[in-house]
Amino acid sequence: MERVAFIGLGAMGRAMARNVQAAGFPLAVYNRTAATAGPFAQAGASVHGTPREAAAAADVVVTMVTDPVALAAVVEGADGAAAGMGPGQVLINMSTVSHEATLTTAATVQKVGAAFVDAPVSGTVKPAEDGTLVVLAGAEAADLERVRPVLEAMGKEVVHCGPVGQGTRMKLVLNLMLGNMMQALAEGLSLGKGFDLEPEAVLQALGSGALGAPMYQVKGQAIENRTFAKQFPVHLMFKDLNLVLEAAGETGTPLPQTAATRECFNAAMAQGLGDEDMAAVYKTLRSLAGR
Amino acid sequence: MERVAFIGLGAMGRAMARNVQAAGFPLAVYNRTAATAGPFAQAGASVHGTPREAAAAADVVVTMVTDPVALAAVVEGADGAAAGMGPGQVLINMSTVSHEATLTTAATVQKVGAAFVDAPVSGTVKPAEDGTLVVLAGAEAADLERVRPVLEAMGKEVVHCGPVGQGTRMKLVLNLMLGNMMQALAEGLSLGKGFDLEPEAVLQALGSGALGAPMYQVKGQAIENRTFAKQFPVHLMFKDLNLVLEAAGETGTPLPQTAATRECFNAAMAQGLGDEDMAAVYKTLRSLAGR
Amino acid sequence: MERVAFIGLGAMGRAMARNVQAAGFPLAVYNRTAATAGPFAQAGASVHGTPREAAAAADVVVTMVTDPVALAAVVEGADGAAAGMGPGQVLINMSTVSHEATLTTAATVQKVGAAFVDAPVSGTVKPAEDGTLVVLAGAEAADLERVRPVLEAMGKEVVHCGPVGQGTRMKLVLNLMLGNMMQALAEGLSLGKGFDLEPEAVLQALGSGALGAPMYQVKGQAIENRTFAKQFPVHLMFKDLNLVLEAAGETGTPLPQTAATRECFNAAMAQGLGDEDMAAVYKTLRSLAGR
Amino acid sequence: MERVAFIGLGAMGRAMARNVQAAGFPLAVYNRTAATAGPFAQAGASVHGTPREAAAAADVVVTMVTDPVALAAVVEGADGAAAGMGPGQVLINMSTVSHEATLTTAATVQKVGAAFVDAPVSGTVKPAEDGTLVVLAGAEAADLERVRPVLEAMGKEVVHCGPVGQGTRMKLVLNLMLGNMMQALAEGLSLGKGFDLEPEAVLQALGSGALGAPMYQVKGQAIENRTFAKQFPVHLMFKDLNLVLEAAGETGTPLPQTAATRECFNAAMAQGLGDEDMAAVYKTLRSLAGR
Repeated sequence: MERVAFIGLGAMGRAMARNVQAAGFPLAVYNRTAATAGPFAQAGASVHGTPREAAAAADVVVTMVTDPVALAAVVEGADGAAAGMGPGQVLINMSTVSHEATLTTAATVQKVGAAFVDAPVSGTVKPAEDGTLVVLAGAEAADLERVRPVLEAMGKEVVHCGPVGQGTRMKLVLNLMLGNMMQALAEGLSLGKGFDLEPEAVLQALGSGALGAPMYQVKGQAIENRTFAKQFPVHLMFKDLNLVLEAAGETGTPLPQTAATRECFNAAMAQGLGDEDMAAVYKTLRSLAGR
Repeated sequence: MERVAFIGLGAMGRAMARNVQAAGFPLAVYNRTAATAGPFAQAGASVHGTPREAAAAADVVVTMVTDPVALAAVVEGADGAAAGMGPGQVLINMSTVSHEATLTTAATVQKVGAAFVDAPVSGTVKPAEDGTLVVLAGAEAADLERVRPVLEAMGKEVVHCGPVGQGTRMKLVLNLMLGNMMQALAEGLSLGKGFDLEPEAVLQALGSGALGAPMYQVKGQAIENRTFAKQFPVHLMFKDLNLVLEAAGETGTPLPQTAATRECFNAAMAQGLGDEDMAAVYKTLRSLAGR
Repeated sequence: MERVAFIGLGAMGRAMARNVQAAGFPLAVYNRTAATAGPFAQAGASVHGTPREAAAAADVVVTMVTDPVALAAVVEGADGAAAGMGPGQVLINMSTVSHEATLTTAATVQKVGAAFVDAPVSGTVKPAEDGTLVVLAGAEAADLERVRPVLEAMGKEVVHCGPVGQGTRMKLVLNLMLGNMMQALAEGLSLGKGFDLEPEAVLQALGSGALGAPMYQVKGQAIENRTFAKQFPVHLMFKDLNLVLEAAGETGTPLPQTAATRECFNAAMAQGLGDEDMAAVYKTLRSLAGR
Repeated sequence: MERVAFIGLGAMGRAMARNVQAAGFPLAVYNRTAATAGPFAQAGASVHGTPREAAAAADVVVTMVTDPVALAAVVEGADGAAAGMGPGQVLINMSTVSHEATLTTAATVQKVGAAFVDAPVSGTVKPAEDGTLVVLAGAEAADLERVRPVLEAMGKEVVHCGPVGQGTRMKLVLNLMLGNMMQALAEGLSLGKGFDLEPEAVLQALGSGALGAPMYQVKGQAIENRTFAKQFPVHLMFKDLNLVLEAAGETGTPLPQTAATRECFNAAMAQGLGDEDMAAVYKTLRSLAGR
């Protein structure tokens, strides 16, 4: 069984690493704040002081950090994971970063002779805990097959999106859908309010047929209960919509709906809702309705 | 068991009436073109020459026709259903018509002492055949409870949306969602194309998680296979988006995303795609992308 | 010299009739509230109790009222202008009404043998007083040439837009431009505010070059001084943008920018700004900016 | 009289430098391709081999190049203009570059003790030749007053927009207006076409009143005659709209109209019209109209 190193034990990474460990893979961990590693050690994991040492103790290395800067910090340099790797090993980056950062990291890893798999995920903390993430993999087919058992410990579905970099791009396509669906729901509930329809009736009607995406129930409840504690905050969605429209310009793909959605998230940001859940875009829409 | 009259045996009505008959309700039918009634007669239904006569032979009358003009033709006047109805009977209109037409028809029916239930459906021919429609009911609670068994023969879910007229309005909210989701999918697949992602990979990624609405698979396949045989044609979606935006103006509910979507369907109409399935809006989007 | 009857002496009509009288045309007037006619009588005009009588006393009849209902009231029926007209006479409707109302009124007038000229104007009270309106004429060329001297008493420019009905349509095109330019100015000043640029500097920069439309100075001052006393109120612009988008659907002309602008005016309406000048759309835009 | 050095003799710079020379200022010139300097030399200018030498021979140095890279090339480094400057001298950058590039260049110039004026212009080659540019100046008041005579040789209006950097930002605001007005005109003419109105009638109606911006006549003629030889090409407008929306995100200023306009220019780019004049966005709009 492959030995796995897990680097990055934030809310997402912690849940994912737990599932890897539960599936029986021998685990090595590294985290910037060492305390987080405690429970993993108790369950038999080895704990390391640098990404390099954790990587050296494994066959497959998983990175799950917050952004390109954090990714570079754990992969590049003398103490980075790449310094502890070589031929026969694979690094799977599951952090969501830009296409450019993905290619840069891949190059660093491939330079020492190891393989690289680009594998951001769709889903937030709950699916991470339940092992029901959707894994968006960009990799050579052989590399993906090799690490598939590790990925399947974390996600219910592994989608092969193409070579390295295509996982990152697929993530952007899904976030385009997510942002537009969030806005569609906000507009539907807002018109429902104008029509004196109860939100729960709208959600019931929406839940049963061909339109019934699971997210509508979660985000609809948030709107109905006015609880906008963040799962996926407005500011991250705004960042992603900007990346989507930038890519739309570079690839010659006009996206008129996404452009309208982006301005609503821009307004939500400007109205101070950046740290609330993206469902708060409903508040922005209602401010336009004068109520 | 309530005796049911079914008026309007088009593609939708036919499938729905079949499920009512299969559930054991004694059936009376009327259709403009009498031949369609044949199979129902063979299965024991009485066939009538006018809506009035069919209605007079039943406790519960269902109308399922194409538009407000057709609805008036089967309900109003000397041979209309209302002329054959009185206290103790209920007319359920399941055709999708305007809010105004719903209220007009309700008034005609209530004038003769009968009850009225506003019950458009969400779903097309396949769910109608499978009895899995979502019924959007606007009615007094007691009237709805009385006819619920009949409605449940046709749909897997009956949503009580409020008093008469609210079913029609809920239908408009769902079509707002449907149109925006269709456009979101078209934009997602278009960006996917710009990224060299295979459509089937996008659909796989989309199908598995919180974004996975069933319609995406159906419409996504249509786009991937370039088969735009109509299920829900562009021209009907365009008509509904116009009704939505008109209502948005009357109720003071700004809908920026829907407005952007409406212009794409306007373009699809102008490009001659009105009779194709609404998934053809993807072609319009690609024409903007120069390919 | 043609004898002119002027029907409708509101703020616009009064100013226009004064210029006709000043140009030496013998004047007959009718107004619902008779008092308004006083100053015209003192200057030599005949005052009449019905539109029919005023029309009968003239060669050229001008109608300038607020909407299609008011227009029908002064043209149709036993006391309407048409009842006092016949061959050799011309009715010029200068009120802004729908294309449909224009054709209906034209038919009524033509039925009694008189000619009809469709001639809405671009410009508000100030240009009406100064005789600098732009007249948008839809008429047969011969009819237009005959009444041109009367029109030139009211406007500095008479544009022949085509046959009857085309004046009304041109008015809609100009209002599409007006609404979009108002929104463009609001967005420009809003970004200017985000950039800490003084509004007067923006207006100075805007006033001098190829972008320098006179309206920007007027509306820009309104925004800078926060004085939104109505000249052209939000609710009329919203009505016109709805007519524009309806026509855009009927003629197959997608208008993505106008659709975005319409939603901003929809929001301004919903926020209670309907009776303020259209420049108040700036307030709506700033509410989106959280300030 | 101030001695002026002019660096950058492209189509714009050449025309501007000619007006400076014609106004009697002693001129020093530098251009990458020396041949262009010929006519200036014949009229008495000194010609220099590096920006440094040209700058050293003047009191006021003007840079007019195509982008931030070209600007850095003529200002920074051992042969750059800054290397030839010191206290008592002023560098006026009239090139349109990013806000960031403006601040970087200013810092370089101020480091050697010279003053910096940020002064992009509104207007293209024709106004540059006629000396009717609008100069958008970001500078300390005293610096601006000192160089005002030089700027007034090139432009009919000098707008003081605030400190260094504010000229560049004002340029972005004007380009927001320009892009949106171009799109508004395209939509107006497109609806006019749907209405069977002649373009020249629309332009006549538009030219006379409060909406009459000079650019409409120029761009309207281009559309009417289908001559899209570039003055201000689609790709530059697309670049500027991207900068505007990026700034809109950074400053919390939602711009829904501009977002819709940007997607139309994105489509024009994707349809291969990038090198045509921005008026070609009309073609994109008509492609949406199926004609």
